[in-house]
Amino acid sequence: MTGHARGAATLLGPGDDAALVSAPDGRTLISIDTQVQDQDFRLHWNNGYRTTGFDVGWKAAAQNLSDINAMGGTATSLVVSLTLPPETPVSWVEDLADGLTAAIGELGATACSVAGGDLGRGTEISVTVAVLGTLDGGNPVLRSGARAGDVLALAGTVGRAAAGLALLESAAPFDSLNEPQRALIHTQSRPQPPLAAGPLARLSGATAMMDISDGLVRDGGRLAAASGVVLDLDPLELKRQAGSLSPASDILAADPLAWVLGGGEDHGLLATFPAGIQLPAGFTAIGSVQAPGTHTGPGVTIAGRVAGATGWDHFAD
Amino acid sequence: MTGHARGAATLLGPGDDAALVSAPDGRTLISIDTQVQDQDFRLHWNNGYRTTGFDVGWKAAAQNLSDINAMGGTATSLVVSLTLPPETPVSWVEDLADGLTAAIGELGATACSVAGGDLGRGTEISVTVAVLGTLDGGNPVLRSGARAGDVLALAGTVGRAAAGLALLESAAPFDSLNEPQRALIHTQSRPQPPLAAGPLARLSGATAMMDISDGLVRDGGRLAAASGVVLDLDPLELKRQAGSLSPASDILAADPLAWVLGGGEDHGLLATFPAGIQLPAGFTAIGSVQAPGTHTGPGVTIAGRVAGATGWDHFAD
Repeated sequence: MTGHARGAATLLGPGDDAALVSAPDGRTLISIDTQVQDQDFRLHWNNGYRTTGFDVGWKAAAQNLSDINAMGGTATSLVVSLTLPPETPVSWVEDLADGLTAAIGELGATACSVAGGDLGRGTEISVTVAVLGTLDGGNPVLRSGARAGDVLALAGTVGRAAAGLALLESAAPFDSLNEPQRALIHTQSRPQPPLAAGPLARLSGATAMMDISDGLVRDGGRLAAASGVVLDLDPLELKRQAGSLSPASDILAADPLAWVLGGGEDHGLLATFPAGIQLPAGFTAIGSVQAPGTHTGPGVTIAGRVAGATGWDHFAD
Repeated sequence: MTGHARGAATLLGPGDDAALVSAPDGRTLISIDTQVQDQDFRLHWNNGYRTTGFDVGWKAAAQNLSDINAMGGTATSLVVSLTLPPETPVSWVEDLADGLTAAIGELGATACSVAGGDLGRGTEISVTVAVLGTLDGGNPVLRSGARAGDVLALAGTVGRAAAGLALLESAAPFDSLNEPQRALIHTQSRPQPPLAAGPLARLSGATAMMDISDGLVRDGGRLAAASGVVLDLDPLELKRQAGSLSPASDILAADPLAWVLGGGEDHGLLATFPAGIQLPAGFTAIGSVQAPGTHTGPGVTIAGRVAGATGWDHFAD
């Protein structure tokens, strides 16, 4: 057992057949997620950017830490299984380990450490992380608890990673991009889930929560279905989010609202709170929770109109 | 929360961003392991055998459950991340889920259930399982606790899966094989780790333990190095193990001792116990623990001679 604050939850680390991790309240959260080369990331992007091992390690940690955050929990430990082609440079793998560790530290998951791992061969790079977390005796915030009359709120950003992806896939050379444009790519390659916000939302009485990994409309639809409600998005808030993506939308002549509604990899938190309470730090109201209509089921609407995955057509009509 | 005995440890299953699993003594064991197509299994073997989804699911569960067993623990939960080529038949994936569940039940991991998962695309099939387990308040049995004078013991089998692999890779058609030969292939495709033996060894005072996944000599070498001892194998016990592999060695004109010393995928347990105690049920003495010599370091020997990964040359000379 280590006496350090960081990684104090890991009672027994790598070197045996399994690691042993503290679960102080007698329960542990667990989630697992895989990133595969050419599916979840490209080593070489169209605009010339090269994904580093550091990027992949950061993103693998970030998206798993986000899953614990989305339950209102705090990560205690993660384990990594790496599949690598034999020709993968050792330096790339070392960068990946550095990226994992850096994300854990810089995103503020200070109780978390890498407790173990597994290494094998394959024809493509694949990185699977399983993460453990604690609720500190509290109840998990589920997708199913939203009630009509609640406030719908967002922590973190939405659409930035999708805008960054569009830049990576564009013909505009990376070297020609300005800082705000590179910052959007940075959100894609090294997402910044708001890790303080999840436990804070739980303690503040959030009724439902999830992280946005597949897009506001798609993930919102899942929360709406689990809760049996309609999530109605405020078009002014959507436009405000979209406006911040102008560094990409301007040079790509793209519709930034499609990134806001369909882009997921910022790993922001979507949560609902009872009306009338003060939203916890980091959250902004972006809509409201309503009962389904008599002829329509649970889902996502924008100012009362059914939202599509890219949203624009329905929103504009 | 389920009221059933099976899977009672899973407090919150699939459907949210993370699962919640009971950790009754305030700690959880965790291990992670990946199987990749054409590295850890072939869909079509040389002898005509076709690996089913059921086989892959079974093996993924079995080798992870074995890691918990090797610490003296009992599995509480597992999560699965699947990477599949788009052309993978749905029925193959359903078979995989059935194989996972069947292994959990038939191997006796009755407190364990599948708590969640993740599905993604890739060019090759990859199955990662992370497994959680409990020590029921006890101490984990590490690789580092063996002491000179201890008895070295084995639970389960060693060499059968390697013999089965040799049959799969041979020119002898699967359809031509007899039942004892098919049973060896069965150990390769659906290993049977002795899941009762790990917790029993812990309760019986085992000083060190690990599962044999990479071979008796290689894994024994790891335990020897961690403990700073020599593991001396009894040649009569090795020959007894080798003799049970004659259904394969006879038709392949192969040396069965190489399978016993180098084959790992049976997932038997290698453990050390203080001399003089009665070995727990399922364990057979296969050697002894000795202090390293003045000129030789920790390692594995056979009747005092240094053992190689395939063992025969050193053993025979």
